[in-house]
Amino acid sequence: MEKIPSNIPYKTYLNEHDLPKAWYNIRVDMKKKGIDINPLLNPGTMQPVTLDELSHIFCTELAKQELDNTNQYIEIPGEVQDFYKMYRPSPVVRAYCLEKVLGTPAKIYYKFEGNNTSGSHKLNSAIAQAYYAKAQGITNITTETGAGQWGTALSMACGYFGLDLLVYMVRCSAQSKPMRKTLMETYGATVIESPSTTTKVGQAMLDASPDNYTGSLGTAISEAVEVAVTKPNTRYELGSVLNQVLLHQTIIGIESKLALDSIDEYPDEVIGCIGGGSNFGGLIAEYMHDKLDGKGNAHFIAVEPESCPSCTKGEFRYDFCDTGKVTPLAEMYTLGYDFMPAPTHAGGLRYHGMSPIISKLIKEGYVDDVRAVDQVSVFAAAEQFARCEGILPAPESAHAIKVAIDEALKCKESSETKTILFGLTGTGYFDLYAYDKFNKHTLTGSN
Amino acid sequence: MEKIPSNIPYKTYLNEHDLPKAWYNIRVDMKKKGIDINPLLNPGTMQPVTLDELSHIFCTELAKQELDNTNQYIEIPGEVQDFYKMYRPSPVVRAYCLEKVLGTPAKIYYKFEGNNTSGSHKLNSAIAQAYYAKAQGITNITTETGAGQWGTALSMACGYFGLDLLVYMVRCSAQSKPMRKTLMETYGATVIESPSTTTKVGQAMLDASPDNYTGSLGTAISEAVEVAVTKPNTRYELGSVLNQVLLHQTIIGIESKLALDSIDEYPDEVIGCIGGGSNFGGLIAEYMHDKLDGKGNAHFIAVEPESCPSCTKGEFRYDFCDTGKVTPLAEMYTLGYDFMPAPTHAGGLRYHGMSPIISKLIKEGYVDDVRAVDQVSVFAAAEQFARCEGILPAPESAHAIKVAIDEALKCKESSETKTILFGLTGTGYFDLYAYDKFNKHTLTGSN
Repeated sequence: MEKIPSNIPYKTYLNEHDLPKAWYNIRVDMKKKGIDINPLLNPGTMQPVTLDELSHIFCTELAKQELDNTNQYIEIPGEVQDFYKMYRPSPVVRAYCLEKVLGTPAKIYYKFEGNNTSGSHKLNSAIAQAYYAKAQGITNITTETGAGQWGTALSMACGYFGLDLLVYMVRCSAQSKPMRKTLMETYGATVIESPSTTTKVGQAMLDASPDNYTGSLGTAISEAVEVAVTKPNTRYELGSVLNQVLLHQTIIGIESKLALDSIDEYPDEVIGCIGGGSNFGGLIAEYMHDKLDGKGNAHFIAVEPESCPSCTKGEFRYDFCDTGKVTPLAEMYTLGYDFMPAPTHAGGLRYHGMSPIISKLIKEGYVDDVRAVDQVSVFAAAEQFARCEGILPAPESAHAIKVAIDEALKCKESSETKTILFGLTGTGYFDLYAYDKFNKHTLTGSN
Repeated sequence: MEKIPSNIPYKTYLNEHDLPKAWYNIRVDMKKKGIDINPLLNPGTMQPVTLDELSHIFCTELAKQELDNTNQYIEIPGEVQDFYKMYRPSPVVRAYCLEKVLGTPAKIYYKFEGNNTSGSHKLNSAIAQAYYAKAQGITNITTETGAGQWGTALSMACGYFGLDLLVYMVRCSAQSKPMRKTLMETYGATVIESPSTTTKVGQAMLDASPDNYTGSLGTAISEAVEVAVTKPNTRYELGSVLNQVLLHQTIIGIESKLALDSIDEYPDEVIGCIGGGSNFGGLIAEYMHDKLDGKGNAHFIAVEPESCPSCTKGEFRYDFCDTGKVTPLAEMYTLGYDFMPAPTHAGGLRYHGMSPIISKLIKEGYVDDVRAVDQVSVFAAAEQFARCEGILPAPESAHAIKVAIDEALKCKESSETKTILFGLTGTGYFDLYAYDKFNKHTLTGSN
């Protein structure tokens, strides 16, 4: 790619011919270090889940990726590379205006993944998952969505490949963002609020607990999986948590490193929000690769909401990935499969568990720091960012902004010229109900 | 800028150091051809409006730009250039997927201006207008907005420069897009639905005609101008129609031409939607420059809604720019200052008049073709585009998409490999109420 010769530009883009042609499978390097994740377990037998068992839930190629700890780079299929070119490369942006407003000597960069209609990084995995389903001859897909970014992304991907999509959308998010439903429908998807009466697990949850009425990602996953394993030619696809999703999201980090290399930058700190962990896992991928190889020492900070503090208050142990106990068991940080988070506005972070890969990297100290932040301070950071950088962030992404600002202000105190990179995963165009509450001072830490 | 050596990429970006440093003033070349526009008239004296008179409405530098027909290129202030770098360059996109779906031999390109939080090209002029106001020591700005893109853009710009902004938003748009109001408020603006009781002209309109209740751009302009000329240290800023706005929007066309030059392309057809005419004027600028100079012969097609057919059914004559008759008279295509368009969803195109520059270029045959299209066919084109190109277009922009598709299908009939460029001015994230009506088959030509 062309090197900008003079000073550092506001935005650094790769050229299309420099776009990554393979995803990076971090498990290979974790295994070399003796810290590979432990296998998913079948809750019935407590034995490792087999490829055959997983292939009832996911299409086969994705099930293979889920279990793969031997192929370091996995080629991105040509059709997926072509689709990526419609909205990628995404820019690495130098936050000159934010730096100026903060008066910090730190250099702040963000990788912006929101410039596509799904509004986030979710499309990176959605198009890959839809592609593999199509290639296998699957006709029907089910999924869950919280904030709606994953559901929108998969609607776009399924619309593109002509697949039928059923989305279970967490009720509290569906009700605060009715337009997300319309957007998914515009791409041809069917959207049902979760918990619903369309599944056994949803019905049981409604019967058992009226408190569950606002829903959660864990419940919506249960519903979508139940449909996938009971309907013909149907598979389930998930927007985070899984190894396969982190794999696809490494496109973020590979692009980021290539772009920052081109302007001779290496981050001292890499900051991302974590809900299921996929954007953070993708963002840090190549810098973590360096760290595992002993070639780099970036400081990694994961940020979660105080209202759903999986890693800061949860336990590291085997647990179900869903509330209805229909999925395999994963070893991860968890608040317990039946944890019901408050109906906060960062719907994408309302998940009881955490990616097993991210959990392991935290457990082993390769992710240096996890912080839980409060919703009101997150929206204050979001508004400050929007006013000077011109992008209205998603509430999820604003968790990373909050900590990036905190770190930049520490640099101001200490006069350090650190280089900070954070992940700006998406835009908040469908979160204005929450912004309106913030503007009117009625937003709290829990709703 | 770097030339992509191999084939044509999906997206062609300029490098930041190639970004235009001046806007192009087309009036200079129109004057050379003897087709400069006739002056704005003071309705009281029927004499040409003076700089002094205009300076009561607009800040002085903008008033000068409004009257300027001698400076061919006008330097973009450094602070505006810096702000542009936050969201520009915008890409020229090759619509490979749309071409494939249509089965057309035509090459379709679009200049995409929606990748910023205002959701459209409007920010190009908003930041310039806010800058000149700030530089003059103005503290308060008033404006109108229809669809909300201009209001959002000016909110962002005024937020950036610390100016107080009052927005009159056309009532039917405000009610179908409540989140637009919240977005503007997040950037610090105050939003009032128009017609309102806060101005004499608004109150008179409410008294005179209950039918006017849905509002129009013409009415909202009257209200905003009334406040600007009666409050201290306040000026009015407008998002289209004016010469100054077309001037600022030429950044679109200058960038487009540089990008297409770099891949050795020259469009046979350039297509844009027209409401006030600014995006179309900006997009065609450098290709029209060629045509006026006898150096190029692109075919220009302007597209307007059937529900507000200013150029296809209006008259070319002097008329008020607003409904309340508080503005100067402009020579333009007009349906009459008191024309009240149906409450269609392309709020940005619901204007009785047309840019005097565009009107003149149509009148003199330099714009080759103007077409009026129906709302339902526009949404059908929008949905087709969204599903294959991954971008949900604004209803306004979809007018251009509709005709670009029509033209590409004609090429299929005739086996012509024309090169088509159209302006994709913005995104439809706040237009999902209208998409929902389309999905449910309740959308009509008039609402």
